[in-house]
Amino acid sequence: MRGVMDFLTRHGRTYQVLSYMPSHMSKSLEFLRGMRVRDVIVFGPLVEPCEIHHPSIVVRKDPESSRNVDAFLADWEQTALLLQGMTLYATDYQFPRPVSGGVQRGLIRMGIDLDDFLRRTIRKINDAGMGPVAVTYWSGNEDQMVPELIQSHEHILPINYRKNRYAAGRQLGKELIQLQKRNPIRTAFFGNDRLAAGIIAELVENGVRVPEDIAVIGFGNDDAGSCFRVPLSTFDSEIPQNALEAAKAIIEKKKLPEETHTEYHFVQRNSFKF
Amino acid sequence: MRGVMDFLTRHGRTYQVLSYMPSHMSKSLEFLRGMRVRDVIVFGPLVEPCEIHHPSIVVRKDPESSRNVDAFLADWEQTALLLQGMTLYATDYQFPRPVSGGVQRGLIRMGIDLDDFLRRTIRKINDAGMGPVAVTYWSGNEDQMVPELIQSHEHILPINYRKNRYAAGRQLGKELIQLQKRNPIRTAFFGNDRLAAGIIAELVENGVRVPEDIAVIGFGNDDAGSCFRVPLSTFDSEIPQNALEAAKAIIEKKKLPEETHTEYHFVQRNSFKF
Repeated sequence: MRGVMDFLTRHGRTYQVLSYMPSHMSKSLEFLRGMRVRDVIVFGPLVEPCEIHHPSIVVRKDPESSRNVDAFLADWEQTALLLQGMTLYATDYQFPRPVSGGVQRGLIRMGIDLDDFLRRTIRKINDAGMGPVAVTYWSGNEDQMVPELIQSHEHILPINYRKNRYAAGRQLGKELIQLQKRNPIRTAFFGNDRLAAGIIAELVENGVRVPEDIAVIGFGNDDAGSCFRVPLSTFDSEIPQNALEAAKAIIEKKKLPEETHTEYHFVQRNSFKF
Repeated sequence: MRGVMDFLTRHGRTYQVLSYMPSHMSKSLEFLRGMRVRDVIVFGPLVEPCEIHHPSIVVRKDPESSRNVDAFLADWEQTALLLQGMTLYATDYQFPRPVSGGVQRGLIRMGIDLDDFLRRTIRKINDAGMGPVAVTYWSGNEDQMVPELIQSHEHILPINYRKNRYAAGRQLGKELIQLQKRNPIRTAFFGNDRLAAGIIAELVENGVRVPEDIAVIGFGNDDAGSCFRVPLSTFDSEIPQNALEAAKAIIEKKKLPEETHTEYHFVQRNSFKF
């Protein structure tokens, strides 16, 4: 984000940094429209509602979740209307697009098909002899990967989002040590560098060697990666580059393709080696 | 910041998160006034101009810096005017207040006298037999601490702010290894956990033991602290608590004292021990 801000400043463009709620995107867009903002770069993940491709985000399991789904769908309808006069650059768009095609105007989709990325990555880990793999719910389709890619449902651990990511990672580390006693794993892949750093610290402090006993893979390629207890192997997410591409397109008044499919690159350090 | 946002949301208060330039505070305040915002919490460091107490920020060494100082002083005059109708909570205010008393209305000062904190801390490190200490320009008065507290001007190293903090820390680590050959130091204290993490990684990877050969102290008590190559000893800055105090006062319509002097607490892990 800092890079994008610096870029815009260098080019004399004013901007506002705003926090937002992913499920209430239209509220932020309305607010920005009131400020006559035309171009909006979203840094967080963005997913369009689709019962086929993203069933987990439109699941109605009780009255409350049903109301939330209604509000989410209404928010996207309003977003589609607002995007007739604005352009939203989604730098971490969750492919695939909805079966319906999704928003027809004003949405620039830059991102990856997470489910596909996860399947390919976990397969590669298994093929390298580094399975079984412990993961969390990330694409939302992990249960369907058991047992082909993930050995057991026990190997899908939820994350405690009330804690900071490092502390949540330490908690996962504790759970992995317990899990290891009854249902061994070889690699932990939880989709976040901070979680990975917490997992590593907890494992190492409890005499579990990383990567010899349990290997750990992060995600995001945080600046801190090489400074953790064990230098962290991770994936470079390319989201920051997408955001910079978006900023460049805005400044240069260049039209970006409606869809850009990015790829995540593996950054190998010590915590996991293929 | 997350804690403050959660707190405000729980109490049904809307808010906007805004980035700002410390030297152009009045522009952000004007913008917020246009949105009818009354209460502003500033998370970054805030320093009021004063030739006596903060000479380094009003130094005129060439025409350009002179223009910048003029702009900075004008910005503060405008800020003082705007604060007749708004309240600014400075959660990391740099004491002491200006000799003139500074802004008379609307500024809630919560912070510490950094120069005093640094002198006390470096003295304590020296008294514990853990000197000489390498530092950077932080309060701006470090040169005056030579030789009483800092052995030599060579022990004051500038930080490369163009790099991310971890990378800048690694660069400092390299410089410390060179410095060690001609003018040994015992402790590195650069006022930032990320810098410290980079320094530690660079030292350890080059065979310098932490804390046995060089001890390292961070600042800020980042969530990552215990997960770095060597668990990081640091100071808890209490700035997040100040921000939460400010948010509580706003919600409860409670008037905070005009000045709150906070203290930094040492968090002892492995990288430095008193």
